[in-house]
Amino acid sequence: MHKLLLTKPDGRSLTLYGRAPIEAPDQAPSPFSEPLGTSAHLRWHPLRGEWVTYAAYRQDRTFLPPPEYNPLAPTTDPAHPTEVPAGRWDIAVFENRFPSLGPSEQAVAPPQLIVPTARAEGQCEVVVFTQDPKSSLSALPPDHVDLLLQAWGDRTRLLGAREEIRYVLPFENRGAEVGVTLHHPHGQIYAYPVIPPVPQRMLDVAREHVARHGRGPLQALVEAELAAGERLLYEGPHALAFVPVCARYPYEVWITTREPVAGFAELAPPVRRDLARALLTVLRKYDGLWQRPFPYLMAWYQAPTDGQAHPGFQLHAQVWPPYRTRDRLKYLAGTEIAAGFFAMDALPEAKAAELRAVAVELD
Amino acid sequence: MHKLLLTKPDGRSLTLYGRAPIEAPDQAPSPFSEPLGTSAHLRWHPLRGEWVTYAAYRQDRTFLPPPEYNPLAPTTDPAHPTEVPAGRWDIAVFENRFPSLGPSEQAVAPPQLIVPTARAEGQCEVVVFTQDPKSSLSALPPDHVDLLLQAWGDRTRLLGAREEIRYVLPFENRGAEVGVTLHHPHGQIYAYPVIPPVPQRMLDVAREHVARHGRGPLQALVEAELAAGERLLYEGPHALAFVPVCARYPYEVWITTREPVAGFAELAPPVRRDLARALLTVLRKYDGLWQRPFPYLMAWYQAPTDGQAHPGFQLHAQVWPPYRTRDRLKYLAGTEIAAGFFAMDALPEAKAAELRAVAVELD
Repeated sequence: MHKLLLTKPDGRSLTLYGRAPIEAPDQAPSPFSEPLGTSAHLRWHPLRGEWVTYAAYRQDRTFLPPPEYNPLAPTTDPAHPTEVPAGRWDIAVFENRFPSLGPSEQAVAPPQLIVPTARAEGQCEVVVFTQDPKSSLSALPPDHVDLLLQAWGDRTRLLGAREEIRYVLPFENRGAEVGVTLHHPHGQIYAYPVIPPVPQRMLDVAREHVARHGRGPLQALVEAELAAGERLLYEGPHALAFVPVCARYPYEVWITTREPVAGFAELAPPVRRDLARALLTVLRKYDGLWQRPFPYLMAWYQAPTDGQAHPGFQLHAQVWPPYRTRDRLKYLAGTEIAAGFFAMDALPEAKAAELRAVAVELD
Repeated sequence: MHKLLLTKPDGRSLTLYGRAPIEAPDQAPSPFSEPLGTSAHLRWHPLRGEWVTYAAYRQDRTFLPPPEYNPLAPTTDPAHPTEVPAGRWDIAVFENRFPSLGPSEQAVAPPQLIVPTARAEGQCEVVVFTQDPKSSLSALPPDHVDLLLQAWGDRTRLLGAREEIRYVLPFENRGAEVGVTLHHPHGQIYAYPVIPPVPQRMLDVAREHVARHGRGPLQALVEAELAAGERLLYEGPHALAFVPVCARYPYEVWITTREPVAGFAELAPPVRRDLARALLTVLRKYDGLWQRPFPYLMAWYQAPTDGQAHPGFQLHAQVWPPYRTRDRLKYLAGTEIAAGFFAMDALPEAKAAELRAVAVELD
């Protein structure tokens, strides 16, 4: 992995990652000239017992570029800088200009309110998967995807080393169906000052599972899914992918390692390469299913970076596509959003069979 | 409150509620002639520690009626029966033909799988708010809305009395933006065999709040919101509505009583009538804001019906509209869905000011 750190004129960081040595200008571009000013703060939700972040300036994202302007494509016209430079690199990571969580040194004092408040410390990063605006994560070669897993590991290590950061979540929202307006292949990384509710719940459940059964729930499930076989989409020497027996979305898929690993930073290279192949297999099956780009939300859960032990928690992706069938979306409604009780109108076994039938070739 | 119980030819129950004595045929209509057959089952999600329900036949809801056919309008042509009869009534409640949870006596044995499974006991009901397909909950007179609160209380009492039912959640999804395809004013009631994750979390948080502070978190918040004043939308003798200081959606509103009440079945008539006015005020402000029907998901949280004490838990609605601004939707994406960590790009105070400025008249 090759890597180059740069700083944008507005103070934001930019890191370029490459399979080959990086070639790029010394000066990182930015569409914005003024220094980054954050105004976010956290408020405590006393009924749910969780933090919510408020960044009022995000409403003003009325930056109206010409239709051909793509802020994630390499800068070609210095008069209209984008977020990334021209040159030789494969993946770029930079701080979001409109972050919900920002670096400690810039965080403003929170207002005094009728609930507890706190500074919105953390970091929100954009991860540009490739220079090619017409490509997609699913179309990249395996060693490029492997580089992405290395980059996620590098970001997790660096962000997680900060005292104030407790949890690092890489994710990708793909497709207009899930609200994405910028179609250049990219994902995001959120680095949180607290362990967010969903990972916290999974940590609690995993800890209890270890106490009862001697190992984590995902480790037990992996063994059972491998034995059952019918929901498997990829079975490699170190990694696997499957439609979980307990899927909450019709085409939900999980991707993980055979042996539990805490996070991207702890992946041994052969395991990481196999995990990249598992991921690529899933994404190509998705795109192959209806012969069109398949939208999804993909989240990679890692152990927290809080320096504590987290027994039974295992690195894995949960991928949630919004479609129920080729032309029907699954809307999250009353029972899912208000109760947190998911209702599925398809059996995971049937959806797994559809995806298993899609032939995929890796380069 | 007047009430008439009927049974549909396919075995489903239908209850009519009226402000005046009910007049209806003895025979309840149904678009379906065969008896209801449920095939749902629950599977345990071992990572999240929660149940998911699977009802595979729901995918087959390919009942393709003529465009003018409205299954929630009163039956006028006996050759094309709808779900509700003609006659004199205000509100109708019937069992969903395609339920995710069904009555015990019909529940099938769950399959043996690699995770624990269970029978999908419970009930899913449709609540028709009015006979008029062109109306809306917001357009009904206060005494009609008060009748709805009585009907919700009646359903909660009857469903909650069943041994297998632990939690009753009335909710309304309104608008195509939240996936609603049937525009006749209606809501739903889900009666669960377990306390679902979101209410369970709120119960745990409330219990801890009582232990620390001597009262529930909503009771404390109500007092603080009344004192602060700037986010209030309705302030009646017994009920109030406000944009909560910790809103997770830009136009989120909570509606509750001044003194804590466990659920709809426990509401004293004057309190209930004031709560109906609070609800109506909020919905009319919504529709008035942009002079068009305002979509939302509205959930009414009650204490569980499990016979246990639930200190600090208080009946209230949380209403979540999907819009950030007049023409921009808030999509739940990576941080909200995957982490459960909400990021707001608007301040609740600013959104409250917008809604406070909308003048509303109740009849």
